[in-house]
Amino acid sequence: MDFFKIHHEDNGTGARAGILNAGHGQIETPVYMPVGTKATVKAVKNEDLYDIGCNIILGNLYHLYLQPGIKIIEAAGGLHNYMNWKNNILTDSGGFQVFSLSEKRKVMEDGVEFKSVLDGSVHFFAPGNVVEMQAKMGSDIIMVLDECSPFNLDYGHTRDAALRTLRWAEESTRARKRLNSSRSKIFGIVQGGFVKDLRKFSAQEISGMDFDGIAIGGLSVGEERPRTIEMLKYTLQYTDPKKPLYFMGIGDPEGIIEAIDAGIDMFDCVMPTRISRTGSAFTADGRINLKNKRFNYDFRPIDEACKCYTCRNYSRSYLKHLVKSREILAGMLLTIHNLSFIFNLVNMARNAIISKNFRGFRNDFLERYRNREK
Amino acid sequence: MDFFKIHHEDNGTGARAGILNAGHGQIETPVYMPVGTKATVKAVKNEDLYDIGCNIILGNLYHLYLQPGIKIIEAAGGLHNYMNWKNNILTDSGGFQVFSLSEKRKVMEDGVEFKSVLDGSVHFFAPGNVVEMQAKMGSDIIMVLDECSPFNLDYGHTRDAALRTLRWAEESTRARKRLNSSRSKIFGIVQGGFVKDLRKFSAQEISGMDFDGIAIGGLSVGEERPRTIEMLKYTLQYTDPKKPLYFMGIGDPEGIIEAIDAGIDMFDCVMPTRISRTGSAFTADGRINLKNKRFNYDFRPIDEACKCYTCRNYSRSYLKHLVKSREILAGMLLTIHNLSFIFNLVNMARNAIISKNFRGFRNDFLERYRNREK
Repeated sequence: MDFFKIHHEDNGTGARAGILNAGHGQIETPVYMPVGTKATVKAVKNEDLYDIGCNIILGNLYHLYLQPGIKIIEAAGGLHNYMNWKNNILTDSGGFQVFSLSEKRKVMEDGVEFKSVLDGSVHFFAPGNVVEMQAKMGSDIIMVLDECSPFNLDYGHTRDAALRTLRWAEESTRARKRLNSSRSKIFGIVQGGFVKDLRKFSAQEISGMDFDGIAIGGLSVGEERPRTIEMLKYTLQYTDPKKPLYFMGIGDPEGIIEAIDAGIDMFDCVMPTRISRTGSAFTADGRINLKNKRFNYDFRPIDEACKCYTCRNYSRSYLKHLVKSREILAGMLLTIHNLSFIFNLVNMARNAIISKNFRGFRNDFLERYRNREK
Repeated sequence: MDFFKIHHEDNGTGARAGILNAGHGQIETPVYMPVGTKATVKAVKNEDLYDIGCNIILGNLYHLYLQPGIKIIEAAGGLHNYMNWKNNILTDSGGFQVFSLSEKRKVMEDGVEFKSVLDGSVHFFAPGNVVEMQAKMGSDIIMVLDECSPFNLDYGHTRDAALRTLRWAEESTRARKRLNSSRSKIFGIVQGGFVKDLRKFSAQEISGMDFDGIAIGGLSVGEERPRTIEMLKYTLQYTDPKKPLYFMGIGDPEGIIEAIDAGIDMFDCVMPTRISRTGSAFTADGRINLKNKRFNYDFRPIDEACKCYTCRNYSRSYLKHLVKSREILAGMLLTIHNLSFIFNLVNMARNAIISKNFRGFRNDFLERYRNREK
């Protein structure tokens, strides 16, 4: 059985619909993957995720390595057992966190030394042991260690980082072969900052290596959205289209639609869960913040068309009260809604691709979403 | 149909088992009532409460009056609709909060003026409007406005507060008659601090008034537990035993068993939900705090005999990690466990009363619970 099979391709856009045959069950693509950094998608139970049709979540090696530690997860029988999650888990390598969270780090040819955000202790990640640790956790999809360049890094350092990421990628494929197991799939990551030549070279090189999928990293890191999409589309021209393509770090409704349009199959972002904990909610008419006084007597659900648990049971007025009172239930209910909204959006996009109407769907959705509720 | 019916009384202790026929369905007593101060029992969904057999929760007039305000709750069709809770709600009058939370308050003969904890604005609660506001929220059980004396208050002030509480109680029964509705039941509150004569007089006076139930207030406010139980038992000698008897503010396993032993039918306390948010959990072998390192490799459930969602699905090791990582899921899962533990305890106590074995059950439970896990 192929790991990835594309069964519909849109005319006129890059959008495509497919199936990933991953270690813990099939995943329809395009797919949004909720972020469960520390072995929990924040503020929801696994059942809440099953209810909205979630077949894959993310875990993060950097955070799990520091707390509780890989040994404990291994002793628990792997990350699935540990957190009692029955579907797929993609684990991020922690490359992004090493470079964004740790103040002090020392990049060397064979890996990166960094200080823990928790206690300042010193650690070393190498491409090979990063693959091994993810395999020990029982990850269904392993990500290679990469060096994510900051948005405004100069050319020389961006090139150095991109080339090092390629050498680490090669080393990662060797480490994966040593594992001698086919259950865990492994994805390479294209870097190269905002330099077209580096993006092109990286995409071609990663496409030539023995990976099960290809991720586009280093985008959506602070730049304006049009630039993100331009660089994404440019990069995808040189990326093997037969493999599943994963945009790391995009998850807002507009970004998701643009990424699918460009040909992306998988994406993740903390944004939908993070905004849930500060009172924000997606609606078909744009994003709203429930702290607003105008919701005091608004007894409608967040989104009239939404069929999620939160919209079936609670009013904007009640949610406004919970947000205002800083009740934990606010974050719980908004997370359920916002994830449901994203899953529903991606489902509709997938159906539109299958019924050859993606462009129309895309335009209708974006027009209404951008014409925010007064 | 009688509001309250006692169907079993223990020999040798004051324990009894009964049924409350409240506005939103029958409640078996003894009953622990989880506290949903601000229209949510913190960190759980209503379904979590239904799952553990919860038929009644508390709301608090003081907090709900300040945020979102009674008008919004009334416009929502009452508190049940507002928070989508299908079972019973007992609302506390806010007397306790006026006297414990508000720094500045002015007690007058006809009520109490206080400053909001939220914004310092000035408000006035009178016995009559406190009853009316609870009725407007659709409360199944209304509590009268009372003046809760601090633990170490002198005799004169304790007496003044107790006598004022009695006059307010009388006024509350008149306000309730004016409501001209039988759906909302109303409970009087016995005060009197730690002065036996005042407790006796208050209990007798409240017992003589037209109340559907009687609460014992002003205990478990900082004193040693033996003193609480002594004063409770003394007070109950002078309290009408045909009415449901409610101990305000007790909810730890030992306290619950002692209160049931003394003849209490209903009790509430934030303690089981509050400790859930700081990593503590009840077990048959005493309370544990999951922050402890000894749980790192402990893959057993919190309590081997517990059948709750948390114990069926998660290990101490994982919960330790969630607590340590300050994940919201920690509070969610521990709240489910701790409430389940309390509900199971009260259920076992009830069955022991019915099968005429309460004293044996009580002694066995307390011996094991106090002989804490090493």
